[in-house]
Amino acid sequence: MPKFARRISNMQASADVIRQLFESMSDPETISFGGGAPAREALPVEKIHDIADEVLTRDKRGIQALQYGNPMGLPDLRQAVIERLLKPKGLNAGMDDVLIVSGGIESMNLVSQLYLEPGDVVLVEAPTFVQAVQIFQLFEATVIPCETDNSGLVIEDVEAKIKKFSPKMVYVIPTFQNPSGRTTSLERRKALAELGSRYDVIILEDDPYSEMRYSGETLPPVKSFDKTGHTIFVNSFSKIFSPGSRLGYIYANNDIIRKVYDIKTATNSHASVLAQVICAEFFNRGLYEPHLKKIRDIHRERRDVMMECIKTMLPDEIKSVYPDGGLFTWVELPRKVNTTSLLADALAQKVAYVPGREFFVEDRDNHDNCMRISFGGILPDKIRIGMERLANVIKKTL
Amino acid sequence: MPKFARRISNMQASADVIRQLFESMSDPETISFGGGAPAREALPVEKIHDIADEVLTRDKRGIQALQYGNPMGLPDLRQAVIERLLKPKGLNAGMDDVLIVSGGIESMNLVSQLYLEPGDVVLVEAPTFVQAVQIFQLFEATVIPCETDNSGLVIEDVEAKIKKFSPKMVYVIPTFQNPSGRTTSLERRKALAELGSRYDVIILEDDPYSEMRYSGETLPPVKSFDKTGHTIFVNSFSKIFSPGSRLGYIYANNDIIRKVYDIKTATNSHASVLAQVICAEFFNRGLYEPHLKKIRDIHRERRDVMMECIKTMLPDEIKSVYPDGGLFTWVELPRKVNTTSLLADALAQKVAYVPGREFFVEDRDNHDNCMRISFGGILPDKIRIGMERLANVIKKTL
Repeated sequence: MPKFARRISNMQASADVIRQLFESMSDPETISFGGGAPAREALPVEKIHDIADEVLTRDKRGIQALQYGNPMGLPDLRQAVIERLLKPKGLNAGMDDVLIVSGGIESMNLVSQLYLEPGDVVLVEAPTFVQAVQIFQLFEATVIPCETDNSGLVIEDVEAKIKKFSPKMVYVIPTFQNPSGRTTSLERRKALAELGSRYDVIILEDDPYSEMRYSGETLPPVKSFDKTGHTIFVNSFSKIFSPGSRLGYIYANNDIIRKVYDIKTATNSHASVLAQVICAEFFNRGLYEPHLKKIRDIHRERRDVMMECIKTMLPDEIKSVYPDGGLFTWVELPRKVNTTSLLADALAQKVAYVPGREFFVEDRDNHDNCMRISFGGILPDKIRIGMERLANVIKKTL
Repeated sequence: MPKFARRISNMQASADVIRQLFESMSDPETISFGGGAPAREALPVEKIHDIADEVLTRDKRGIQALQYGNPMGLPDLRQAVIERLLKPKGLNAGMDDVLIVSGGIESMNLVSQLYLEPGDVVLVEAPTFVQAVQIFQLFEATVIPCETDNSGLVIEDVEAKIKKFSPKMVYVIPTFQNPSGRTTSLERRKALAELGSRYDVIILEDDPYSEMRYSGETLPPVKSFDKTGHTIFVNSFSKIFSPGSRLGYIYANNDIIRKVYDIKTATNSHASVLAQVICAEFFNRGLYEPHLKKIRDIHRERRDVMMECIKTMLPDEIKSVYPDGGLFTWVELPRKVNTTSLLADALAQKVAYVPGREFFVEDRDNHDNCMRISFGGILPDKIRIGMERLANVIKKTL
């Protein structure tokens, strides 16, 4: 058989862990803190039902929902993005600056296809979102981690690595980061945008969680400090509407969007129109704002329960991140615990998480005592049960 | 600003024509034979409405439709593909051999990402589907056309070019080809599968139209003659269900599908689950077979009207393809007519088509007298009006 392209063997072999986690999610007995899904109780099923019931009729809208669409995406949905999602963040986009994609992952894929040559360097946070790394590797980029602390990327390290490696791109999730739950400070957001402009580097700002804030003050995105067009802002509807719809968007200068349009056309033409029509209607009926309040309340309770469980059930010597929003917290266990080998014990006790090493590109052994814990998808009572199981598994190793 | 990747400038600059055609489609006065959309009257709006009404409830299925899915695709939909679409073609696939993608275009994209290195050669039909060529070029492949006649690819030319260029892949639409409407003969289908096996070349068989047969005898796919796994069979639900849903599938040996799974994960995770749930239910309720009969009847009438118009309205010296199915016919006008410069006149008279040169990789000037005419999306009466307009525009140039 013909050989697969070199890029395939370049992908980090963590696909197996992701596969395993997908599988553990389908076992109803297992309480999985491993997923990245929002609360099923937060999915607007009834509202989507009502909208589908009204739009799926044999008139202009019903036909539109089932016929080919424009690669830019549905105008109504782009308008909703501009007015209801970007403007409140202080971002003033025009209709030609926003393109609808098939979920957040795809935005990273399209931007990578637009910019990355084999051997190009992409700087990422350590730890970072593992699927983004796989995408960069699929385009044969060299992925180099930068230091982070509780205020996000350490700017001095980013600047030093820009000078040393001349990267094409810096990838960052500034708010309620996946996997750490950390938020980049205001000063560092400004500094990141300025680094992009000064050194001619793309800042790829991934923002799927910022709407899901449960405490603390809202911060403006990196993109709001971008004066030269170097920051590309990408986002997803997965957390605020529905993951299964596979919708997201890219906001960038129009000369970039025009090229993304060509690549999107050659990737899969356009996002599912039915999903776009329903999502646009969800915003245009004014359903989004009350829905956001509801899902914040649901997830805030889970965050609070999880942080209480961590405090009361886990040993004193652990460290954890208190996330002001999003779906994740990050736990550092004592050095002698190996969360990768612990996972088999945990799964046997019907509880799951993602071992910390999976989120690192380099120096993975040094993070074998960490784990990402997701509280978004689990009911509060189940969080307590799951954390009891996990605490027992951990205690046995100490 | 950082430079775009080299692959971007490698894409043939026909994106503008596609953009222009998308725009002409939105002018209600223009009768466009330029699109590739099926009849809007053939879209199962009411059935999809009924299904959405039933599945979008706060139970397992409704939640499933809105939550993250598996990159392989919904098991129910893969099962429907295997039983209702592949088995009737003589193809016996297992559940692990079929992966659901976001439309037919994406299957080409994923297979290209799996196999193509910069400089690899892909053989295509001349003429061929222009968006497939753009995908191959986006992966920096060299696209080389092979001769075709009324029975499809000329096998001797394919074999000679395999020997000369050692291609990675041969791309073929054997049934009711886009743009020519031609169908590859049984003997040549066998021969193509054998060439793939003998010379260790991937045969990428694209089959979006074969269900839409209005006359003549059904032919088995190239894949049914593949003994070594070299043929990858890709297909779309756009013509038989709905283009806007963006659903398709890839059928290949499991060792290939496993790698496609990784790439699909890194491209956009999975196809829209809502669309998949509705499509699976469409098949499982037994709605597909009567729907297929209906859409064949609708499109057969349009094919017949179009061929009658061509015969009676266009000058005697033209040649055209009589398609036994699909959406397209191919018209060769006298040498002195240039269909690219004619398009402006045609658009002024509110009728559109795609100039023939757009479907060729090489020697495009030599096909400036050709045009692709799509009859699928236009009501019979409108076909007559549009063809009168087109006939007048053509006659003025003779």
